Amino acid sequence: MSASRQQTHDLDRGSSILSARLKENGRALLAPAVRLAIALRLTPNTVTVIGLLITIVAALLVANGWLLAGAALLTAGSLLDAVDGALARAQGSGTAFGGFLDSTLDRSGEAILYIGIGAWLLATQPDPTWPMIALMIALAGSFLVSYSHARAQGMGLTADVGLAPRTERLVLVIAGIALAGFGFAPGLIGVIAILAALTVATVIQRIWHVWRLSQAAAPDLKEN
Amino acid sequence: MSASRQQTHDLDRGSSILSARLKENGRALLAPAVRLAIALRLTPNTVTVIGLLITIVAALLVANGWLLAGAALLTAGSLLDAVDGALARAQGSGTAFGGFLDSTLDRSGEAILYIGIGAWLLATQPDPTWPMIALMIALAGSFLVSYSHARAQGMGLTADVGLAPRTERLVLVIAGIALAGFGFAPGLIGVIAILAALTVATVIQRIWHVWRLSQAAAPDLKEN
Repeated sequence: MSASRQQTHDLDRGSSILSARLKENGRALLAPAVRLAIALRLTPNTVTVIGLLITIVAALLVANGWLLAGAALLTAGSLLDAVDGALARAQGSGTAFGGFLDSTLDRSGEAILYIGIGAWLLATQPDPTWPMIALMIALAGSFLVSYSHARAQGMGLTADVGLAPRTERLVLVIAGIALAGFGFAPGLIGVIAILAALTVATVIQRIWHVWRLSQAAAPDLKEN
Repeated sequence: MSASRQQTHDLDRGSSILSARLKENGRALLAPAVRLAIALRLTPNTVTVIGLLITIVAALLVANGWLLAGAALLTAGSLLDAVDGALARAQGSGTAFGGFLDSTLDRSGEAILYIGIGAWLLATQPDPTWPMIALMIALAGSFLVSYSHARAQGMGLTADVGLAPRTERLVLVIAGIALAGFGFAPGLIGVIAILAALTVATVIQRIWHVWRLSQAAAPDLKEN
């Protein structure tokens, strides 16, 4: 197995659009939010649920055409989204259920946001057919990126490769919503099309990656 | 852990709409198809990919209004879908990658079918807004049902509870497409609304279920 681990590590390098360093800096910014959450005696799971509620409100804002307000709230919510994990680490209270709840509600939040964008497209676009099809591909593709990761994890493999992890997807979507909020709807539709292409490419890349890893580790992984 | 395993088993009982017996009978019908696949020297993974291609063709038929042809092809494809697993068992050649490919392409096929239905709704319904929102909820809900299962599996837990496993969802969708093919579009829209409600309920049920299991097995599952 150690050979395949090493290989995983090599394949991971440089596979993400945002650098690990940027993420580290982001984490340093979280310290005050984590201290506040501790002062308010919030558990990581409570923070996770509050994050989902914020995303629901933002999706409703977007659906009703309050795009800039939605983009601003999503930015705030995405910072909160990083707080739960940091809080769990700070308190040493991370549970397996916390990880499960966090990732399941992350997926739910992403879906709810896409549905809000869909409602906006249906209400405002003269012919929403192709934007809606691209949106459904992006929704399905985003899920498949996460699903293939979780399934690979269940096999004891790591499938972190890919051009469109969640943080990058969220940054793109928020930028697209803001562009549409400034009156440039093709900006949001373009982002959706890019997400559709990136997520489908990432899924294919992950299937390929898992195939390579399972070939490398074939003797360990045969069932029965 | 054995206590939580037992509990899983108890919670599973009677949680599915189609009985296990019906599924057993279905498997017996597969024997000739499995023998044919062996005679043609098809590997389980080839059968999985052929199944996806059939679903893509069916989705294109549905998108273009050939609903009855789409429903018929989906029925054939769903039988094929059971062949890959049966073939792998018959050949003793089931690999971890085969399981990964099968479940990832199953999800992809379901999404592609929903996108085909979406294209049909957008082309034919005077106001597709609510049907499209219900469809996106059903798509996201179906994925979350599978995702929560895969994530729980990654934690070493079983989350098979739920009113809307994949076979049941597919039966409902095919019935809805056939109803619309016979001119009763509200039948398909109704099925989509039912799927949206059932899948969201199943996700909530699974989160609750994993929470209970992780409480029962708390000492084993604490991270670090």
